[in-house]
Amino acid sequence: MFTTSFTQLVDIQYPIVQAGMAGGITTPKLVASVSNAGGLGTIGAGYLTPDSLRTTIRAVKELTNRPFGVNLFVVQETLPNEEEMERMNRHLDLIREMLGIERRQRIYRYSESFEDQIQVVLDEHVPVFSFTFGIPSQEVLKHLKHHRIVVLGTATTVDEALQLEASGVDAIVVQGSEAGGHRGTFGTSAMDALVGTMALVPQVVDHVCVPVIASGGIMDGRGLIASLALGASAVQMGTAFVVCVESGAHELYKEAVLRSHEDETQITFAYSGKAARGIRTKFMQDMNGYPGKIPPYPVQNALTQDIRQAAAKQRNPEYMSLWAGQGVRLTTNRTAQAIVQECAQEAMAVLENLDGHRNL
Amino acid sequence: MFTTSFTQLVDIQYPIVQAGMAGGITTPKLVASVSNAGGLGTIGAGYLTPDSLRTTIRAVKELTNRPFGVNLFVVQETLPNEEEMERMNRHLDLIREMLGIERRQRIYRYSESFEDQIQVVLDEHVPVFSFTFGIPSQEVLKHLKHHRIVVLGTATTVDEALQLEASGVDAIVVQGSEAGGHRGTFGTSAMDALVGTMALVPQVVDHVCVPVIASGGIMDGRGLIASLALGASAVQMGTAFVVCVESGAHELYKEAVLRSHEDETQITFAYSGKAARGIRTKFMQDMNGYPGKIPPYPVQNALTQDIRQAAAKQRNPEYMSLWAGQGVRLTTNRTAQAIVQECAQEAMAVLENLDGHRNL
Repeated sequence: MFTTSFTQLVDIQYPIVQAGMAGGITTPKLVASVSNAGGLGTIGAGYLTPDSLRTTIRAVKELTNRPFGVNLFVVQETLPNEEEMERMNRHLDLIREMLGIERRQRIYRYSESFEDQIQVVLDEHVPVFSFTFGIPSQEVLKHLKHHRIVVLGTATTVDEALQLEASGVDAIVVQGSEAGGHRGTFGTSAMDALVGTMALVPQVVDHVCVPVIASGGIMDGRGLIASLALGASAVQMGTAFVVCVESGAHELYKEAVLRSHEDETQITFAYSGKAARGIRTKFMQDMNGYPGKIPPYPVQNALTQDIRQAAAKQRNPEYMSLWAGQGVRLTTNRTAQAIVQECAQEAMAVLENLDGHRNL
Repeated sequence: MFTTSFTQLVDIQYPIVQAGMAGGITTPKLVASVSNAGGLGTIGAGYLTPDSLRTTIRAVKELTNRPFGVNLFVVQETLPNEEEMERMNRHLDLIREMLGIERRQRIYRYSESFEDQIQVVLDEHVPVFSFTFGIPSQEVLKHLKHHRIVVLGTATTVDEALQLEASGVDAIVVQGSEAGGHRGTFGTSAMDALVGTMALVPQVVDHVCVPVIASGGIMDGRGLIASLALGASAVQMGTAFVVCVESGAHELYKEAVLRSHEDETQITFAYSGKAARGIRTKFMQDMNGYPGKIPPYPVQNALTQDIRQAAAKQRNPEYMSLWAGQGVRLTTNRTAQAIVQECAQEAMAVLENLDGHRNL
């Protein structure tokens, strides 16, 4: 029904990418449903061990023979600053006490090894690989090309898009400030790179030749056509899929997204040490008053993991991470297939409507 | 060439509104050129005395017989806190010293009287009246209706749009976070109401019945069609017109906008006490370190006026207010007529292009 340079590149029917949201949301069923419906499903694999990534990829392959993607975090391993970490841990202990849990004796690993994860992507010949937070080494990118894997990078500014294009990616996800979850910013301060999708997409399109995938605040067929009008070749939607039937998101997380308003999200470093947009919680507010420096990702992410897990178990959303974009009012609980197909149908209706504005 | 509910409402050819930017940008020539080109020109009259507003309206009428608008600020008069003000003034004295100017002995008026300004709008039978920062009294709105003046309010959230619709406005300007200049927020904290245009427009459209005018990051025919796709009936563009030939903006202000990048603006309270987006300056940075509370609008605006004026005279843009939205890379120095007509032409080309995505 739609043909764009991106649908041709990855061989999908609709220019709709389901964002590779990490943290258990993108179940094999969700990913396969999106791909089977004509979009591009994506495994959010940032936090997956190489073994569980392999298992998940194989589960998706069982459920679809259509193209799908894997999304990973490109993270600089930095040695944690012990003093900074201990100070944060003492602050977090107050919350742990309230939740009735104890600080873990030791954190063995702050994040998964990107090298081991990418090896699984190569071994399994995943059709599409997308990444965020930076740019993989030229060696990694060469291996991906060699395996004929389509590679998508994430940019939040024109300069980042230019760097990605120069690195040889096949297409660029342009993340506007509306987007939920982690900011992909790697070329400047994340707080400076909060540019709205309406402004960002055409500015990037004017500077790169590869297809652009618009993301941030796109929720339905209106956003899809708006993005194509701005020069994008496809859209990436995250928040819309968080609440869908196949999503692995916690029930309370889904409920919070479904009832939130457009002005109830904010950018925070509180949960992971990296800027991310989510629904305002007591934990964010509490961390606003933290007098020290929040340790950078992935350290803070590892430090708060037990708190988030305990809060989920205790059904206390105020200490869970409720990542969501600014389009929250447009979420409805449907199947992933319904989201993809209704988005495409609505897009056709929007095109008809636009025709009505022409009276030459 | 275009027909929307908004073009019919105000009887214009193209669904393009030139934003009523205050501070000398919207010369009669600019306003009339936009209207003569088929859009809706707007006098940014927030800072104009009733007398100069009357003179400006008459000058516009000399130059066009097409509809045009006047934009005013709906401001709650608050008594300034003398202590807060003196503390700020002592801080500003350091900047005054650097610029070689002295603090004014007394400020006779913090802002113009809205009542006196609106009387001129009524007397002069201005075709369109738009406002921001709040909602005028029912009495004022009744007088406007009685004079058959089309009334446009400004919203930055769904709730504000609902309040505006309930007050009886004819259409609503929906201001996304990309927009340059002052935020129109009146129903919540301005920092909470920074919702991107892509996300905000469809959420408002779903909740109101009056025509919606999208604003924030819209720079050309791509943004125009994108906005119509999102359900808007027109767009409002400000930054695009700041740099045009007829604009009264200071030459250095125009140059700064023309060379800026999408990530070089920020929201600040420094200049006026009210949240506004502009190109980052030394003055903003300096005020970031101010330990006290910035006096609210219009007090801070009156306090910094001499500094902004001296900086302009001395050709020092770092202490001028350089209001601009996040679409700055898309600005080019053209006539206002060229902006309107090229936007409409590009919009038709975008529609053709979108047709290409359909292969039913």
